[in-house]
Amino acid sequence: MAEPLKIALAGLGTVGAGVIRLIETNASLIARRAGRPIVVSAVSARDRDKDRGIDISGYAWEDDMTAMAARDDVDVVVELVGGADGPALTLARNAIAHGKSLVTANKAMIAHHGLELAALTEKARVALKFEAAVAGGIPVIKGLREGAAANAIDRLYGILNGTCNFILSTMEDTGRDFADVLSEAQAKGYAEADPTFDVEGTDAAHKLAILSAIAFGTRIDFASVDTAGITRIQAADIAQADALGYVIRLIGMAEVDSNEGADRLFQRVQPHLVPFDHPLAHVDGATNAVVAEGNFSGRLLFQGAGAGDGPTASAVVADLIDIARGDLGGEAGAPFSIQTDEMEAMAPAATGHRLGRAYVRFMVADRPGVLAEITAAMRDAGVSIESLIQKGRAEAGGEVLVALVTHEGPESAVSEALRLLEGSSGLTAQPLVMQILGH
Amino acid sequence: MAEPLKIALAGLGTVGAGVIRLIETNASLIARRAGRPIVVSAVSARDRDKDRGIDISGYAWEDDMTAMAARDDVDVVVELVGGADGPALTLARNAIAHGKSLVTANKAMIAHHGLELAALTEKARVALKFEAAVAGGIPVIKGLREGAAANAIDRLYGILNGTCNFILSTMEDTGRDFADVLSEAQAKGYAEADPTFDVEGTDAAHKLAILSAIAFGTRIDFASVDTAGITRIQAADIAQADALGYVIRLIGMAEVDSNEGADRLFQRVQPHLVPFDHPLAHVDGATNAVVAEGNFSGRLLFQGAGAGDGPTASAVVADLIDIARGDLGGEAGAPFSIQTDEMEAMAPAATGHRLGRAYVRFMVADRPGVLAEITAAMRDAGVSIESLIQKGRAEAGGEVLVALVTHEGPESAVSEALRLLEGSSGLTAQPLVMQILGH
Repeated sequence: MAEPLKIALAGLGTVGAGVIRLIETNASLIARRAGRPIVVSAVSARDRDKDRGIDISGYAWEDDMTAMAARDDVDVVVELVGGADGPALTLARNAIAHGKSLVTANKAMIAHHGLELAALTEKARVALKFEAAVAGGIPVIKGLREGAAANAIDRLYGILNGTCNFILSTMEDTGRDFADVLSEAQAKGYAEADPTFDVEGTDAAHKLAILSAIAFGTRIDFASVDTAGITRIQAADIAQADALGYVIRLIGMAEVDSNEGADRLFQRVQPHLVPFDHPLAHVDGATNAVVAEGNFSGRLLFQGAGAGDGPTASAVVADLIDIARGDLGGEAGAPFSIQTDEMEAMAPAATGHRLGRAYVRFMVADRPGVLAEITAAMRDAGVSIESLIQKGRAEAGGEVLVALVTHEGPESAVSEALRLLEGSSGLTAQPLVMQILGH
Repeated sequence: MAEPLKIALAGLGTVGAGVIRLIETNASLIARRAGRPIVVSAVSARDRDKDRGIDISGYAWEDDMTAMAARDDVDVVVELVGGADGPALTLARNAIAHGKSLVTANKAMIAHHGLELAALTEKARVALKFEAAVAGGIPVIKGLREGAAANAIDRLYGILNGTCNFILSTMEDTGRDFADVLSEAQAKGYAEADPTFDVEGTDAAHKLAILSAIAFGTRIDFASVDTAGITRIQAADIAQADALGYVIRLIGMAEVDSNEGADRLFQRVQPHLVPFDHPLAHVDGATNAVVAEGNFSGRLLFQGAGAGDGPTASAVVADLIDIARGDLGGEAGAPFSIQTDEMEAMAPAATGHRLGRAYVRFMVADRPGVLAEITAAMRDAGVSIESLIQKGRAEAGGEVLVALVTHEGPESAVSEALRLLEGSSGLTAQPLVMQILGH
């Protein structure tokens, strides 16, 4: 059997410990599939003596993780430290500079610095792989970059954040409110102590920006992802959606918009109403799912566990097996499917002309005339209403919920209607708009 | 840009024409992703002048397809002729003998001769790729062979035949009977004039045998797949299943059974009852879906169009892009993930001790005592009945349907009960047994 592939592992949190556990548990299987063993040469983390449930005494320890990049007994550096910048980025640059391949699960770093790193690896003719950065154990980077490589991708969308999906599907199952379910998710370890990155959509936006670049050959543009989270969704919204035949899911969606003369990149993370009979409506709990619509393949769906140490380790080690097999992603590299110098810088698309149906929810004062005001604004903005529900009557002096679903029309019309209603004393809160996912 | 990858195409049916259309339509995209253009050097088919909606006048024509294997201007032979043996196999052997890589969509040939061809390509250090042989445009071979490569696969199952799924989901939607829906499927081109391979489960068994080999590292054993088709399913079965919370799907399933001391390979294609809340219950029409349960990844689901010229061409050209990129599937080859000489010959598993719940349907004479006979046989064989439905009363002198669902128990107990009922004058037809898919 050929020489082992020797790796250095930076970061021994749950994912790092999972990678070591996987490499040890499945060692003989991995060696047979990769054509040679994968062995850990060195590890580094903040605290050497922390109990991680694994024995690291057999691996060289480096206090300074960047030192691992220079070791002769290392072919691949595995970066599991996290963070867009700082030590992770320093290590990544150093590893490539020393001619090592780089495997990472760091979506923030790839979303912000992926093109720089890819250009470096293309020049150094080493591999840069980040399957674990998007959708945990689901091989969706490979699915898009290789499996769907023959296709022009018309549209890409999916459920990219397991925490949000857990919260939304639990709200759906239990009728409980957001804050309540978030606390439970935190207690169970499905949500971080500071859940902002997840519940505000940032994490999903990182992943969407990475997938867009691969699917459309565009330069990563995380900053332009139009991002909304799930914090304003109420139990009542979920109940209304259900009555209308929908579930609510946080959807990341991207496509190339050619309606404005030049190609522009549309990227959005927003809660959507998903019809019961759509495959994404049945994606529950912390599961992720990605749909890619190719011009020859038709609709492809990739689904699985979006996070957790086992699934993430599965993706990290799949990347290592590719490298051990000598499949570096093209002889000249190209972590994003095409070479970085051929990736197109595409301006962000305007969204006003996009056609769709929307769910709009108002919290209104429980007094006469408010409904007339809303419907008049809709009429004046040219929004055609398909259905409208005013939910019961509030406790004395409280607010009531008015939810409506529009017929298909431009997004700008709904925005215009909300502009007309700005400052109305009848509205007790900012209206919430969610698009309805088409088939 | 590097030298083009030059291919020869044997077989210009719908898939062959689709491959040419794809290569022409997406040419510049493919060249950017593959790092070099993919060009067709030569083509061969039975009839040169047939109208296929594509212009083949720019490609060299070979009357004798095996001659393509010897051409200097060919790097890869794409075999789209079909058939387990005969011209397809001759061409495949010839191509490899001439040092060409081979891409094929031919599931029958791979199920029967895949190991021989893989061994030849491993020796010749050329690629053998057959993504299109399983599940059309879904990159499931790649998903298992590479995406899930870090995992021991605990179980693999899925919907592998689009024709059967179209028929079953149409029966479900319309309440019509099998023969009726089959005729419609034939008229629409979803089923062949001779549908035997599809509706009897053979096609799904070919695909399952190929996936098993990749997932479990076992030598392909198509002959041992325990195969049943969908021809005996009645509208009444679908109605009963629906009343109980299930849909009926033809499921291919494989796992390694370690209960008998030595590892044995379980492979079965059989209609199953699938609970409404299982992801496979929502796979409708000609769609395929494959689930792989990895020991670290957890459950991975791959779903998409299982047939058709576009999706199949998408898979064929994805294989070509891999080859153009130089990703041959490991430096030493290994089309089935591990080298053929390391693949294990595993005896087929016995099924009697398998635990599960089953749906058993009887057609019985509409007279007193038959129900008592059935329930007594179940009791005597140790089968515990969870629910039983006798459906109405037949027209004068006719037969009625009795359907029951068992509690979990060994499959052998159900077989024993049916053995006890053999020859009973109360049964007007052979009972139909379908397993219930667990979560």
